[in-house]
Amino acid sequence: MLIALLTDFGTRDGFVGAMKGVIHSINPGVHVVDISHEVEPFNVLEGALILKAHYRYFPRGTIFIAVVDPGVGSERKPIAVKSGGYVFVGPDNGIFDLVVKDSGTEPRAVLIENPEFMLERVNNTFHGRDIFAPAGAYISRGVSLDLLGRAVTYEHKLNFPACVETENMVEGEIIYFDRFGNAVTNVPCNSYKKALFRGREIKVVSHFKEGKSLPLCSVCGSFGFMELFVYMGCARERHSLRPGEKITFIK
Amino acid sequence: MLIALLTDFGTRDGFVGAMKGVIHSINPGVHVVDISHEVEPFNVLEGALILKAHYRYFPRGTIFIAVVDPGVGSERKPIAVKSGGYVFVGPDNGIFDLVVKDSGTEPRAVLIENPEFMLERVNNTFHGRDIFAPAGAYISRGVSLDLLGRAVTYEHKLNFPACVETENMVEGEIIYFDRFGNAVTNVPCNSYKKALFRGREIKVVSHFKEGKSLPLCSVCGSFGFMELFVYMGCARERHSLRPGEKITFIK
Amino acid sequence: MLIALLTDFGTRDGFVGAMKGVIHSINPGVHVVDISHEVEPFNVLEGALILKAHYRYFPRGTIFIAVVDPGVGSERKPIAVKSGGYVFVGPDNGIFDLVVKDSGTEPRAVLIENPEFMLERVNNTFHGRDIFAPAGAYISRGVSLDLLGRAVTYEHKLNFPACVETENMVEGEIIYFDRFGNAVTNVPCNSYKKALFRGREIKVVSHFKEGKSLPLCSVCGSFGFMELFVYMGCARERHSLRPGEKITFIK
Repeated sequence: MLIALLTDFGTRDGFVGAMKGVIHSINPGVHVVDISHEVEPFNVLEGALILKAHYRYFPRGTIFIAVVDPGVGSERKPIAVKSGGYVFVGPDNGIFDLVVKDSGTEPRAVLIENPEFMLERVNNTFHGRDIFAPAGAYISRGVSLDLLGRAVTYEHKLNFPACVETENMVEGEIIYFDRFGNAVTNVPCNSYKKALFRGREIKVVSHFKEGKSLPLCSVCGSFGFMELFVYMGCARERHSLRPGEKITFIK
Repeated sequence: MLIALLTDFGTRDGFVGAMKGVIHSINPGVHVVDISHEVEPFNVLEGALILKAHYRYFPRGTIFIAVVDPGVGSERKPIAVKSGGYVFVGPDNGIFDLVVKDSGTEPRAVLIENPEFMLERVNNTFHGRDIFAPAGAYISRGVSLDLLGRAVTYEHKLNFPACVETENMVEGEIIYFDRFGNAVTNVPCNSYKKALFRGREIKVVSHFKEGKSLPLCSVCGSFGFMELFVYMGCARERHSLRPGEKITFIK
Repeated sequence: MLIALLTDFGTRDGFVGAMKGVIHSINPGVHVVDISHEVEPFNVLEGALILKAHYRYFPRGTIFIAVVDPGVGSERKPIAVKSGGYVFVGPDNGIFDLVVKDSGTEPRAVLIENPEFMLERVNNTFHGRDIFAPAGAYISRGVSLDLLGRAVTYEHKLNFPACVETENMVEGEIIYFDRFGNAVTNVPCNSYKKALFRGREIKVVSHFKEGKSLPLCSVCGSFGFMELFVYMGCARERHSLRPGEKITFIK
């Protein structure tokens, strides 16, 4: 069994280590994999995007615990969701919207409310450790979602910028920058003739090196979306790119 | 069996990877979990604090290898300590003082001096790889502490700022800032009426969102100590908080 | 079985998590260890150096997947190399030059070209996930290198600065700075009388604390090379050290 973790906790304070301690206390044999703990603090959209980019590469049955949770301890609810052959555990703040939409199946959601499957003492600043880690660990041991709490309807809450598609083009925008400074857009990968950005034509290439002599290029990137990049450079800095900047892809 | 690692090695140079290579060479089946490798270089107090915050969330029997070790290779001694059902392996520079004190049981300590349980060639700049990782791995395989070296008395060496408790209040100070900029104090969690800080009253709340409209708030935090925070903001920057600043909690 | 990962992907975007998802999909039981994902983007030499520093501390048979790969998707070839009892999987851009040289045995290399051992859809920006992770995972399951593709001669491509040895001295240079600001040189560890740097004599000590009262010192470091350091300080900043600066060690 595999549990995968995504948080905005960083790796310095030991919070993720504590979650893993809890998981191994409940299910010693489970393998735990980190997706990212460097999500920008409180940025639920970024967490949802990173989770959506990568979840399909994990084995069916993987349990994802995702905690980007500015409302921890307040009225937002802890949930567990089955969707597309995977289980997702975390707050009901929209962090699972993109994977639920992507999986294309009807999600099955329950509230996590049965204290039997939480730590004995729940601290209201750290549900990652006290509620979500135990829930994920018990699920990995075979505990059925029904035992965690009442079934609820999965509600989409994320304000994800949609791209606009017409017969000849797709209009989108920059939504994220990766470690290399590549600008990820919200336009899904496809074969496009070219892109229009800041009033100029941008070449669409099939791999980075093909853009070697060009100031800015576009490629189908690792997130499954079209990206802007500079070969062996940082496009974000080189061109002062900003989130929300519009880009059009020509079919 | 579980081995948990805490160091100030960072994750860029591969030092932690080498430790894990050594551990898996000695005990291939063991699970290894990272607590933190981003302890401020040489800051033994910070390492001790992070270890103390999280160790109790690991299964009994977990072996913690903690290496924040400015004196590596010099006269300070490598030790292994049994305390509270856990084993701690690292330098005798005070990094285990807080867990030993917290566990409330008499610690049993030995020197690590038997070369049979070290790498063949010990480099005096990297005892984490050459002495502590092998010792932890052999202990995880069932090697008794007695075989590692002579029993010694555990000596407390850490200069941890104590808080001062009276009938009506606890006086403490800021000792650490977490990734979110929350200010961790040395005042243990408890129900307090309010706090006094920089001559002003600070509200004590039960979760972050309760402090939504307030400029600065206090809560029982994830380290088990009272914290100062700004809801969805960075208290450290917003209020230019500094380590050592005094705060009083009213019972 | 153990798979160890080295990349320049960082840990924020989830790229390494996706690789681990792929690996566990193919070989659920395998242990995966991170060496580093903070190699400077596109810096093949740095990746080669970190891999060479640590690989010998892993159990024989460990499979190293190393991806620092500015030419991803272009004419450079994916390879798998057996050398010194280990297997190395990655691009043929020189990243394995130092381990192959260090192991002292004749390397056996094959191209990774059999699509049976890749993901079904290969994205040309992410061979780490789509080609190298599956290849490493299948090798960990016992797939023979011959099945991956044609045998090729291993070609050295890295521009690694050689040090110059005479009867009485070794002349080298600074090639890397570690997390603590220690300056790693290309001069292999040995017993030296002293070093000459910027026209001054530098003491060679056996552990860091021995250099406590000195402005700059040298020691046999954790990479297996001589290093310059400042006790409990950052030599790089304190002395404005630069990569490529010459240093001479006197035998």
